[in-house]
Amino acid sequence: MDFGSDNAYGVLPRVMAALARANQGAARAYGGDAVTQGLTPLFSDLFGRPVAVHPVFTGTAANALALATLTPPHGAVFCHAQSHIMVSECGAPEFYAHGARLIGIDGPAEGPMAGKLTAQAIAEAIDALPRGFVHSVQPFAVSLSQPTELGTVYGLDELAAIAWVVKSRGLKLHLDGARFANAMAHLGAATSGELAAATWRAGVDALSFGASKGGTMGAEAVVYFDPADASDFEYRRKKGGHLASKMRFVSVQLEAYVTDGLWLESARRANALAQRLAEGLSKINSIRLPVPVQTNMVFAQMPAGVAARLRRAGAYFYDWHANADGPDADSPVLARLATSFATPDEAVTRFVEIAAAS
Amino acid sequence: MDFGSDNAYGVLPRVMAALARANQGAARAYGGDAVTQGLTPLFSDLFGRPVAVHPVFTGTAANALALATLTPPHGAVFCHAQSHIMVSECGAPEFYAHGARLIGIDGPAEGPMAGKLTAQAIAEAIDALPRGFVHSVQPFAVSLSQPTELGTVYGLDELAAIAWVVKSRGLKLHLDGARFANAMAHLGAATSGELAAATWRAGVDALSFGASKGGTMGAEAVVYFDPADASDFEYRRKKGGHLASKMRFVSVQLEAYVTDGLWLESARRANALAQRLAEGLSKINSIRLPVPVQTNMVFAQMPAGVAARLRRAGAYFYDWHANADGPDADSPVLARLATSFATPDEAVTRFVEIAAAS
Amino acid sequence: MDFGSDNAYGVLPRVMAALARANQGAARAYGGDAVTQGLTPLFSDLFGRPVAVHPVFTGTAANALALATLTPPHGAVFCHAQSHIMVSECGAPEFYAHGARLIGIDGPAEGPMAGKLTAQAIAEAIDALPRGFVHSVQPFAVSLSQPTELGTVYGLDELAAIAWVVKSRGLKLHLDGARFANAMAHLGAATSGELAAATWRAGVDALSFGASKGGTMGAEAVVYFDPADASDFEYRRKKGGHLASKMRFVSVQLEAYVTDGLWLESARRANALAQRLAEGLSKINSIRLPVPVQTNMVFAQMPAGVAARLRRAGAYFYDWHANADGPDADSPVLARLATSFATPDEAVTRFVEIAAAS
Amino acid sequence: MDFGSDNAYGVLPRVMAALARANQGAARAYGGDAVTQGLTPLFSDLFGRPVAVHPVFTGTAANALALATLTPPHGAVFCHAQSHIMVSECGAPEFYAHGARLIGIDGPAEGPMAGKLTAQAIAEAIDALPRGFVHSVQPFAVSLSQPTELGTVYGLDELAAIAWVVKSRGLKLHLDGARFANAMAHLGAATSGELAAATWRAGVDALSFGASKGGTMGAEAVVYFDPADASDFEYRRKKGGHLASKMRFVSVQLEAYVTDGLWLESARRANALAQRLAEGLSKINSIRLPVPVQTNMVFAQMPAGVAARLRRAGAYFYDWHANADGPDADSPVLARLATSFATPDEAVTRFVEIAAAS
Repeated sequence: MDFGSDNAYGVLPRVMAALARANQGAARAYGGDAVTQGLTPLFSDLFGRPVAVHPVFTGTAANALALATLTPPHGAVFCHAQSHIMVSECGAPEFYAHGARLIGIDGPAEGPMAGKLTAQAIAEAIDALPRGFVHSVQPFAVSLSQPTELGTVYGLDELAAIAWVVKSRGLKLHLDGARFANAMAHLGAATSGELAAATWRAGVDALSFGASKGGTMGAEAVVYFDPADASDFEYRRKKGGHLASKMRFVSVQLEAYVTDGLWLESARRANALAQRLAEGLSKINSIRLPVPVQTNMVFAQMPAGVAARLRRAGAYFYDWHANADGPDADSPVLARLATSFATPDEAVTRFVEIAAAS
Repeated sequence: MDFGSDNAYGVLPRVMAALARANQGAARAYGGDAVTQGLTPLFSDLFGRPVAVHPVFTGTAANALALATLTPPHGAVFCHAQSHIMVSECGAPEFYAHGARLIGIDGPAEGPMAGKLTAQAIAEAIDALPRGFVHSVQPFAVSLSQPTELGTVYGLDELAAIAWVVKSRGLKLHLDGARFANAMAHLGAATSGELAAATWRAGVDALSFGASKGGTMGAEAVVYFDPADASDFEYRRKKGGHLASKMRFVSVQLEAYVTDGLWLESARRANALAQRLAEGLSKINSIRLPVPVQTNMVFAQMPAGVAARLRRAGAYFYDWHANADGPDADSPVLARLATSFATPDEAVTRFVEIAAAS
Repeated sequence: MDFGSDNAYGVLPRVMAALARANQGAARAYGGDAVTQGLTPLFSDLFGRPVAVHPVFTGTAANALALATLTPPHGAVFCHAQSHIMVSECGAPEFYAHGARLIGIDGPAEGPMAGKLTAQAIAEAIDALPRGFVHSVQPFAVSLSQPTELGTVYGLDELAAIAWVVKSRGLKLHLDGARFANAMAHLGAATSGELAAATWRAGVDALSFGASKGGTMGAEAVVYFDPADASDFEYRRKKGGHLASKMRFVSVQLEAYVTDGLWLESARRANALAQRLAEGLSKINSIRLPVPVQTNMVFAQMPAGVAARLRRAGAYFYDWHANADGPDADSPVLARLATSFATPDEAVTRFVEIAAAS
Repeated sequence: MDFGSDNAYGVLPRVMAALARANQGAARAYGGDAVTQGLTPLFSDLFGRPVAVHPVFTGTAANALALATLTPPHGAVFCHAQSHIMVSECGAPEFYAHGARLIGIDGPAEGPMAGKLTAQAIAEAIDALPRGFVHSVQPFAVSLSQPTELGTVYGLDELAAIAWVVKSRGLKLHLDGARFANAMAHLGAATSGELAAATWRAGVDALSFGASKGGTMGAEAVVYFDPADASDFEYRRKKGGHLASKMRFVSVQLEAYVTDGLWLESARRANALAQRLAEGLSKINSIRLPVPVQTNMVFAQMPAGVAARLRRAGAYFYDWHANADGPDADSPVLARLATSFATPDEAVTRFVEIAAAS
């Protein structure tokens, strides 16, 4: 019953098989291999237009490098105050962007807008910075998480409204897609037309295309929908130590992941497990689900006793408020339950049973 | 009637005279001169303990360098969300601290706490960061403005409460004292015992000792109350391009400024002018003073028509909300009126008369 | 006949098997798993003392992070003018060390000292920097490549002489061990006593322990022989985006690589192939081997025609001087031939035959 | 007899008078004042074309900011191995350029080329970097010192030859003109046509226009001959803490310095003193002048006993090799003797007399 992280379960069998195949014979290092070279047409097909795609090892690297190409050191990037780039990357974006600033915008922690930003809030935050005023950092980019840290998904209309605000002010729009497959599965986007509608047609300039959480071993990609935006990317990646010597083993993971819809199929399974988990928990009186379950994460507020019983039974999950609230044994616990492509069905069944057995 | 900035009026006569005296004969460059060497005993006497004191040209350099010595690149500095280091230094602290983060804490814009932070709010902000958690920036320093951007002054008890929070969590406390003299004048601190009580005895580790706004030409100092905290300062200053070749001309400004109480005397005059201005304006029905006047700044909310009439009459002042609100000709204007050691008495008299003549 | 890079051939079978085993069940993310936790005792045993060991993805990250922990922004790191950190990492050390400087020291390109620095040359370079002089970057670390970029190996006596110079001046000594196994194989070091003698007992403070070139998929480690030197490492790694979410898959590569001497066994094979290649080529009149062959790299100067014939026959290798000399079709070619654990025996045989067939 | 530094003597009387004049009434802060606004036409007239001109406090800031605008973090700047930016600025260019690299090129320490670089050597250094190769820093700029650290001056033909190399490879050319007036005085450049020929017509893109060494209190300017190159300058300057609050006091120094040829007149006097000093010393058998005296610096190699006698008599000068050679009481001393606008004639006379009195 491991719901701690989508990183807890390992690697998709088809990705493992691809790694084994890549281990035949010799290949050029540092991305000169055929698989890496093939990613550009592969991702261009996927999104229905010519893109620049650059593999990296981690989501933090993808985000930090992407943002650094979109904003100069005197720039500001607007994001959710509780976004991953703000609270979980130890300042990597600021490091890669040489001291640029992240400006966090607050949003609700519960309900349909949980984890999301509105176009209005973004507009106000951007407009609060005096433009062309040398004493102030200047607005250059907005970064959204799709899905958000709370597992909610921006609809295409929400995205378009935000993109309009971003573009009308001359900024760039970045998506942190650490769980991008889960969002696309939720939106029902699968064809290149649908994926285009959910990204560049909606106004997205750069995407951190997550794959590790979805079932690769350690592979992410930065996708630029206008390759001109990626101009310095390769130097920045090398200078950051993220150019893989045996790049083919990173690239082949990405190739396998997006081939034949594996990424979306895996995400659909994870999302479905989360739905089943949510349905089961929602029938338990003592448990409250404050956030709509749209992808592979369930937030369940439960009495401390229930959480303790689940843990004693071997369940693993993250107490979302633990840091702020500290070790108060009697407070209710807000459990974050992450499912993955490999989470056993029985784990969900058993978790609900134990939770219900109060 | 120039109330635009305490930088609008120039240099104190005694500082000009000191510059002329320093221009006799030859001296060692880069701080090897006698005046610079004498700053250490001079400031140690001033504050009643051995300090390290380093002259720089600007307040932004003082703040950024001080904070960079107190926090590593993975660190966070807590400050008021509207503090100078947050909104008026274009990210200089993040540049000098190599990508460390400023975390802004909101506070009231009006009333007795305007511009100030409470010990409680600081404690909550620090404690919201998970300590020792590698995914999060780590708390290292708190920076207060004394006086605040709104001209209010932390009392010794407020300072002590904040320092307790800061120290109990192992952080360092920095004061941005761009208008430090005005704060000390308000608190009635003049002797070394009183200045000690307002700084290191209250728990302050490093002070950006402002002088330019108080009447020097371009001279500030970073004062470390424990010289051990300043270990790398000189290399950082040089690497930042802030080591003056003809340092004596910077140092002599600081020397003249603190000798015979010139700094406090000048600040008392500026504060008194602000008091008189506030008293005059407070009698005008259409004008509201939302912030207590404790130093040399008066915030006066007035009808747009009154502001326009004053400007037509030659008054110069800053519209504090102009950036956010934009050019709405009918909104009331929140005028920030800064007085200085050299503001003519008549300017105050005339400003009040014109404002009252509606 | 791929001698282009030790990165050309893929992953050791035992490493692939370990990856498959690691893909069973769930595990904690970000290094909380049992394999990662086990690296500390494993490497401590390997080197015969308690060490701190931190996995990363690339050698550039290992070097840049290690050097950043050993030198502040105003520091200098001394290295060979043609070392990897100087010419092949696009300034990653300067980025991670926030603008610190690499100072290159020249050395011979041929003969027994090819690629190596002498204690004397290092001493002179260090002593040329004025200590405590604020206008100059200050010496903090020396970085040696073991083996060097030319495949030569520092003997223990050479290392000790250099370490004495380094330590007597208060600096730290870093080893870039991208091909560390090949150097240890050459030195005949295998037991913990022998490895200790080749590292910390000789005065090495930090080691970039390379594994990718030796047969892992993408795994390196930074080893600190005094864990106190690693104090900020984990924050720097995270801030650089090098903390793996599914860390167990990086760690298990390192575990398999050093278990039962796999790393040294593989290196011995690669070294032996290089010896055989060198012996074959040395008998060809038109070919000259300017650098002693001690590890897995052979430098062979050959007529342009011979190089062209080899390439037409399918041989792949790097023209070491191509960048500087440009495309002069008639100049002799200095071919760098890298062997690996997986280079087929026949590739060596055939390469020599074709080279000889002039 | 102070020949230690051109910073030893203070401020030109006309600059002091201008500072006093600037201290009348109020003015806009941060460069909004009339004097600062007037610098653009003033310097555009001076150089005979529209320029961007930005005042800063120090030469190190001028150089570091100028170079940061001309090269990205993955770039390299070529300069003399003994240039000020390489050996005397503690890595400020690398800090401001976010980890870009300075690449030093060696040149002779004696004779007509002392301190200078040749077009040929620069071409070779640039061409040694593999272009478009992601593993290597990329060439972006060349920085020359005019005059050099040894006081020699590039002739217009030398400058043109270097500029051709620089431009033909797509790089930018920067001049560190800490003693620019002395170089122009040597070249006899005074009219805008002559100054144009010595700068932008010769291919210079950006100039650190030094004034402090020439007689201002603390004022330098970065001049861009194509204002488009300066695009981010103002944000970089602010972020570096170099935007003066009372900017008029910096700008007025520059204004006075270039008005009515004061800068060139002062430099001519300093140069003439150096000539007289050199002539006197050249007649002394035990003294050798290894570097041609073209500006305000004389390098005189003298027996240790002569140097000691001069110092006992009150002479102050810098032992150019002291850092490298250490305190060897018997070695000859290479004295660097700097003259300035304010060095008394008698100091030269007396210095020569004492030196001759062996």
